[in-house]
Amino acid sequence: MSKERVAYLNGEYLPESEVKVSFRDRGFVLGDAIFDTARTFEGEIFRLDDHIDRLYRSLKAVDIDPGLSPEEMTRISQKVVEKNLPLLEEGEDYWVFQRVTRGERALVGDPQHGSGATVIVECTPLPFKARAPMFRDGIDVLTPVIRRIPPECLSPNIKNVNYMNLVLAEDEVRGYAEHPWAVLLDTRGFLCEGIGSNIFLVREGRLSTPRSQFVLEGVSRQIVLDLAVELEIPVSEEDLTTFQAETADEAFMTSTSLCLCPARTYNGKTLGDGKVPGPVTTRLTAAFAELVGHDFVDQYLKTLKQS
Amino acid sequence: MSKERVAYLNGEYLPESEVKVSFRDRGFVLGDAIFDTARTFEGEIFRLDDHIDRLYRSLKAVDIDPGLSPEEMTRISQKVVEKNLPLLEEGEDYWVFQRVTRGERALVGDPQHGSGATVIVECTPLPFKARAPMFRDGIDVLTPVIRRIPPECLSPNIKNVNYMNLVLAEDEVRGYAEHPWAVLLDTRGFLCEGIGSNIFLVREGRLSTPRSQFVLEGVSRQIVLDLAVELEIPVSEEDLTTFQAETADEAFMTSTSLCLCPARTYNGKTLGDGKVPGPVTTRLTAAFAELVGHDFVDQYLKTLKQS
Amino acid sequence: MSKERVAYLNGEYLPESEVKVSFRDRGFVLGDAIFDTARTFEGEIFRLDDHIDRLYRSLKAVDIDPGLSPEEMTRISQKVVEKNLPLLEEGEDYWVFQRVTRGERALVGDPQHGSGATVIVECTPLPFKARAPMFRDGIDVLTPVIRRIPPECLSPNIKNVNYMNLVLAEDEVRGYAEHPWAVLLDTRGFLCEGIGSNIFLVREGRLSTPRSQFVLEGVSRQIVLDLAVELEIPVSEEDLTTFQAETADEAFMTSTSLCLCPARTYNGKTLGDGKVPGPVTTRLTAAFAELVGHDFVDQYLKTLKQS
Amino acid sequence: MSKERVAYLNGEYLPESEVKVSFRDRGFVLGDAIFDTARTFEGEIFRLDDHIDRLYRSLKAVDIDPGLSPEEMTRISQKVVEKNLPLLEEGEDYWVFQRVTRGERALVGDPQHGSGATVIVECTPLPFKARAPMFRDGIDVLTPVIRRIPPECLSPNIKNVNYMNLVLAEDEVRGYAEHPWAVLLDTRGFLCEGIGSNIFLVREGRLSTPRSQFVLEGVSRQIVLDLAVELEIPVSEEDLTTFQAETADEAFMTSTSLCLCPARTYNGKTLGDGKVPGPVTTRLTAAFAELVGHDFVDQYLKTLKQS
Amino acid sequence: MSKERVAYLNGEYLPESEVKVSFRDRGFVLGDAIFDTARTFEGEIFRLDDHIDRLYRSLKAVDIDPGLSPEEMTRISQKVVEKNLPLLEEGEDYWVFQRVTRGERALVGDPQHGSGATVIVECTPLPFKARAPMFRDGIDVLTPVIRRIPPECLSPNIKNVNYMNLVLAEDEVRGYAEHPWAVLLDTRGFLCEGIGSNIFLVREGRLSTPRSQFVLEGVSRQIVLDLAVELEIPVSEEDLTTFQAETADEAFMTSTSLCLCPARTYNGKTLGDGKVPGPVTTRLTAAFAELVGHDFVDQYLKTLKQS
Amino acid sequence: MSKERVAYLNGEYLPESEVKVSFRDRGFVLGDAIFDTARTFEGEIFRLDDHIDRLYRSLKAVDIDPGLSPEEMTRISQKVVEKNLPLLEEGEDYWVFQRVTRGERALVGDPQHGSGATVIVECTPLPFKARAPMFRDGIDVLTPVIRRIPPECLSPNIKNVNYMNLVLAEDEVRGYAEHPWAVLLDTRGFLCEGIGSNIFLVREGRLSTPRSQFVLEGVSRQIVLDLAVELEIPVSEEDLTTFQAETADEAFMTSTSLCLCPARTYNGKTLGDGKVPGPVTTRLTAAFAELVGHDFVDQYLKTLKQS
Repeated sequence: MSKERVAYLNGEYLPESEVKVSFRDRGFVLGDAIFDTARTFEGEIFRLDDHIDRLYRSLKAVDIDPGLSPEEMTRISQKVVEKNLPLLEEGEDYWVFQRVTRGERALVGDPQHGSGATVIVECTPLPFKARAPMFRDGIDVLTPVIRRIPPECLSPNIKNVNYMNLVLAEDEVRGYAEHPWAVLLDTRGFLCEGIGSNIFLVREGRLSTPRSQFVLEGVSRQIVLDLAVELEIPVSEEDLTTFQAETADEAFMTSTSLCLCPARTYNGKTLGDGKVPGPVTTRLTAAFAELVGHDFVDQYLKTLKQS
Repeated sequence: MSKERVAYLNGEYLPESEVKVSFRDRGFVLGDAIFDTARTFEGEIFRLDDHIDRLYRSLKAVDIDPGLSPEEMTRISQKVVEKNLPLLEEGEDYWVFQRVTRGERALVGDPQHGSGATVIVECTPLPFKARAPMFRDGIDVLTPVIRRIPPECLSPNIKNVNYMNLVLAEDEVRGYAEHPWAVLLDTRGFLCEGIGSNIFLVREGRLSTPRSQFVLEGVSRQIVLDLAVELEIPVSEEDLTTFQAETADEAFMTSTSLCLCPARTYNGKTLGDGKVPGPVTTRLTAAFAELVGHDFVDQYLKTLKQS
Repeated sequence: MSKERVAYLNGEYLPESEVKVSFRDRGFVLGDAIFDTARTFEGEIFRLDDHIDRLYRSLKAVDIDPGLSPEEMTRISQKVVEKNLPLLEEGEDYWVFQRVTRGERALVGDPQHGSGATVIVECTPLPFKARAPMFRDGIDVLTPVIRRIPPECLSPNIKNVNYMNLVLAEDEVRGYAEHPWAVLLDTRGFLCEGIGSNIFLVREGRLSTPRSQFVLEGVSRQIVLDLAVELEIPVSEEDLTTFQAETADEAFMTSTSLCLCPARTYNGKTLGDGKVPGPVTTRLTAAFAELVGHDFVDQYLKTLKQS
Repeated sequence: MSKERVAYLNGEYLPESEVKVSFRDRGFVLGDAIFDTARTFEGEIFRLDDHIDRLYRSLKAVDIDPGLSPEEMTRISQKVVEKNLPLLEEGEDYWVFQRVTRGERALVGDPQHGSGATVIVECTPLPFKARAPMFRDGIDVLTPVIRRIPPECLSPNIKNVNYMNLVLAEDEVRGYAEHPWAVLLDTRGFLCEGIGSNIFLVREGRLSTPRSQFVLEGVSRQIVLDLAVELEIPVSEEDLTTFQAETADEAFMTSTSLCLCPARTYNGKTLGDGKVPGPVTTRLTAAFAELVGHDFVDQYLKTLKQS
Repeated sequence: MSKERVAYLNGEYLPESEVKVSFRDRGFVLGDAIFDTARTFEGEIFRLDDHIDRLYRSLKAVDIDPGLSPEEMTRISQKVVEKNLPLLEEGEDYWVFQRVTRGERALVGDPQHGSGATVIVECTPLPFKARAPMFRDGIDVLTPVIRRIPPECLSPNIKNVNYMNLVLAEDEVRGYAEHPWAVLLDTRGFLCEGIGSNIFLVREGRLSTPRSQFVLEGVSRQIVLDLAVELEIPVSEEDLTTFQAETADEAFMTSTSLCLCPARTYNGKTLGDGKVPGPVTTRLTAAFAELVGHDFVDQYLKTLKQS
Repeated sequence: MSKERVAYLNGEYLPESEVKVSFRDRGFVLGDAIFDTARTFEGEIFRLDDHIDRLYRSLKAVDIDPGLSPEEMTRISQKVVEKNLPLLEEGEDYWVFQRVTRGERALVGDPQHGSGATVIVECTPLPFKARAPMFRDGIDVLTPVIRRIPPECLSPNIKNVNYMNLVLAEDEVRGYAEHPWAVLLDTRGFLCEGIGSNIFLVREGRLSTPRSQFVLEGVSRQIVLDLAVELEIPVSEEDLTTFQAETADEAFMTSTSLCLCPARTYNGKTLGDGKVPGPVTTRLTAAFAELVGHDFVDQYLKTLKQS
């Protein structure tokens, strides 16, 4: 099939439909797997080094040896994108994933050795069209009841596939707003993070986001923190309450795929005057677009005009 | 290959080597999957109804529709065992797993529908030989630093594949004793559970185990609780401290695969006089064996004589 | 106006429209007030002694002296009902409230003495019609994000007017179901209570409700606990999780006004087969009705036939 | 009565003795009410805009619509003071309160609409004489056992009338010192706030106060934070322990009525050399007085000379 | 000096004034020491076996080897009492202490071995006179702000000399009542224990005391639990709140030295009608006296008549 | 004995073997004692003022009156060193301790007064040889399961002798690495402190250490914080997770005796490339040595060459 993308699996570049894992793989039976995710801008993977660094920190923290050096992982990631670029439609970009599991092994508690890691590198077009309405209208952030797993149980800094906690959070708020996005509280009751995404608030001209110990240290999150310093917007990482969120002037989410997307409501309460993006969000969006050399908002919005 | 076991995958019984899942399956990329596990005694699945009930409670809690009724799941489980019985060596028994994922779907947050659940039912011989030394010498229970995920984040009553927390716990204690087994504390600092296993203490003739809200409600755990009542051994579910564990007279672990296996030390401190099994454990082991109609300890121990 | 009810205010029985409190009353400016609430069955106040006892325990806990003995408070309560009985329509009953504030005083921190307590005793017809659909269809219990105030800050055993926490909980779930009722979690993440109401679960024939330290010790709650013992339904006060609630076979709320009203869903998940009331709830409802000598369910339901 | 002050009640300016609320008002029966409080300096309301802003943030957080714009609320507040100025004795100033309740409504859980908000704006002379000894001798700060309600239950940033928690704290320390003032701990065990007041510590020339998420964001507190920056006194919001308080060099309370009042002891331990105000407090007091254009300490102290 | 008592120190029976420890002893420099304490009734040590058992459990938990068997420790304890009996005045009894430190050692972190344990066994007359007013009037129980160290930091079941936490608790309440006794809360906010003593409440005929995981498992506490069962007084170990304590009908403390002593107030609130001992306390006191064969209350009270 | 050191005991300078305390001293029986510890560099006590200040803050916090002014304590400390200097071998230095107990007293709860404080000032050669391998190879930091006592129970800022919690932590990790050093977590799950020592991490050029509320405010810790500012190394006090520690580039411990000693592993994971000291540690070590005018690393390392 000429239209099928390829992905890397343990040394080979295969059509995606042939990239399958054994039901005995620990990534499948135990969620014993690490991943990371980057995106391209106009075909180039953005900040791939930062993503590969984070991937290897996560692997170190859980003692999985991918059997590849960071440099090799980088090259494979680039090659996967390169091979799939011809399949990209105009205006599209790729979401790029590295996935590493501990591989197959005899079952839990048994001492014998296993198969070595399973490594998959793959890409998929970013879901611009599906998310474009959020860029147009703003996200409706909602707090689910379920709390984010605390660092003493499993550090959110380790980007691993144990997403059930986040999946249930999303499931909980679905249907409670037009463009719902769950931002969980941590076990102390403070704002934490959404599924694969970080939250920022703007209050009286000051920017704030939850502390890095409690959330995934998002690459986009770090970009926003850095841009704020450059733009001389006062910025801090701190414990934030739902009161502060609900009465904020502006709020936005960041993630690799979103870059930065404004929120219009928080727990049903209109933020500022309800028009998105607000002034601080607008400045940061422009600076972000300039940094990446690409108008990512327009990339989302123009899909709205397509039939 | 005449020697290969078969497993059920979405309606088909296939050789295990052909049972593979897409790298896009949510069970693989997000740990968005539920499972349960039973065992056979002399070829018959024990308490399959209890396991199927628990499987469907877990599925309900995370809103995954397996597309099969409990009765169908029961019949498939029985059929998988039946088909594989000829491959079982003398003295062996099967560990039987039902696995249900949310299937393939467009990525997170996108509204479109997916593929329907992925259902796998499979079996594998129980690791009698690997664990036999624990039955002979007793388990060395150790408390890892990492804490068990609390119910407000993800109920341990939901048997799902997000095992990274437990995998890291095991990893932490490995090498710190001859037969190490990690029993995590909950976030309140009380004894919780081990990987796929429950802990019991015996103190001055009284049996106790952590409260059911904080642990997987193991079928073997319930059997022990019921047997204790029958044997008129005072028994309770309660919050237990490491002090109580380290100064206990006896302790043992329960799980589907172990049934009930004695511990000899707790955090390096000898339990009672160090001889296993202690008197209460011995009584419960005998009653358990009688209930299942099978000397499961002997089944473990006799593998020690094999070359 | 011949149709106006009277209420007791500091020694006088006045038409309700004349029962007003100063904007300087500490009950109004600081929520520095205690209350209790009973109901009549066919014109008789039910278990008034229990309610008066609880009222005086609450008063003792916050050091408010009502200036009346429990016996006087009892007689006033009876007299208020007696005076208002002629205004009660057929099939109706009264909700009876005792309210005691610390009265007027110089502002916070100043040493001078105040006015003495403000005491109001009043009654109002129970809202049978408004709540009848809940008895017909079952309540949709929902968990709000906001947590119940913990005992170390303000004991829920003290029935005081600081209801903002509960008001916000109700506000949060409104609109998320047809017959929504918020049951908050405590700060530890366990089921706690609803506004003026207690929650019970039925799981495998066993009845359970949150521990008394964390909730208002409802008079109806105690009746149900006592009836369960009489009916030989196993019953316990314990820490309960949302998993246990969502997978329960039955659930119901108790309160002075509801007596006992079944739930049909918990966090959107159907309880049992979704028919209300379930078998255990039915037995307890019948026993409750017998105890009070009145078919309170019918009293609710027959308002549905009224235009 | 020519000597009676007037207050605003739902559109009317009435003599205070006629400003009464129904016993059915939700502010009275459920503490379902918001307020704010400012003071005058020489007849002018200080920072009224900040107080009105905070009032409307609180109203938004609990979804009460006062039926008045912030500008209207501002004008009413000014008018209430204006009307009552002639009654002010020399050297006195007014404490000004805006109070907004959700009004009357059918009881809890019933869907029908209510009366609209109850709005009261009133003023009362500040209690200079009663508190003057604290300015002369210093406050004796004491830690009560009762803990401040945590933000996940009810944000202290919402200035609402649920003061029972604080009333009990004050009640607890009364009689344990000459000029007692309760500063509660939060549920994590750190210094939090007093009734309507904030605590500051001075340690080795550095000023610190509890973090804004855990306390009412006092207008006077913010003034002190701003003045410290101007005076180049190192200052931070942070988690503070009783050890740090008891061994501090200086401490003081801030509130709208106190502005800034020094403490002499903390839990019975003398602060610094026990002379009040200490050097940093003295500098901040002078700067505060200059900012408001009024020697508020002298205003307190000269009442001591009056018979 | 013929009047001097002797004590056991590392193998010798010496006059008390010669029983000294090096300032390098780890018991002195690090609090690295375990102890236990029993009392005599008419010259016989009561339940010495229970105390020796507890001593050895504590020693095991902290890995101190006393170099003596439990039987030897028992004999030494008896001999110390025997040798000192002639010095006991009429009506007096001995308080008997076993003390074991880890001995002298090179400082922290250094690998070399030390001196072996330091063992002291000593006795002192019980302070009947000093405490007699408590038996006559009742104890005034007070809650200090400082919280009891939680089990995950240091189990209260280990009777060790790290009493600073309890010493500060006592210091805090001293002077706040006539017969003050501090009962700390645990870190969860529930009643815990006093210095070397346990608290019991009586509410509506039911007896309760904090759970054993959170307190020293007092020998007298266990006696009361056992006596309650014998007397058919409903009894439970549970989490108790200050509300429950302040509104209890009766309360009492137990300890080796007190046996069982009634409280008259809790946090300043009168328990029941304020007369001590209350009816349940009276029954338990009588049963306790009968068990030990000695009227211990009279032993206290008759010291009041002495000049 | 000409070779014996002398120590100060309650007014006298005695040979160490004569410095003994009664077994009735509260420092011995209740751990009711405060201490501090400094060291000499080439015979001079370093920052003695800071240590004496901290000693007196600790004494104030627990209300022990040493009966000596800070100036007297300073002079005694200097004199003890002076008297013992002749006994110091070449290349050695003294560890200097002030120890103050509440002295002897009648037992707990009795009102009568005691003996006054026991004051000991002593010195001992620093254990250079025993710890030199840590300077050569790096410390292996390990997290024990036991948690550090939280400030609401006993502030770690109070340097008192209740070290059982820390002794058990050390005991737990002993044998799990070549140069093990326990750094406990606090009860919130963040890095806290080791026995008499503070932990620092270096991540991407930034230095961080746990917040001062949760640890002993070490004098060496403060020196490092100050040096970092001087060297323009970004530095902060913050909550740190084990993930951050295990993936740090460098880490080191500080204490009076160590000054600053590098770590090579954290929970078994190699820090950076595993070579110690890393670049930031090297800069800080050099600056520390310059500040104290002494190459303390060399002082440790040269003991390795001695037989």
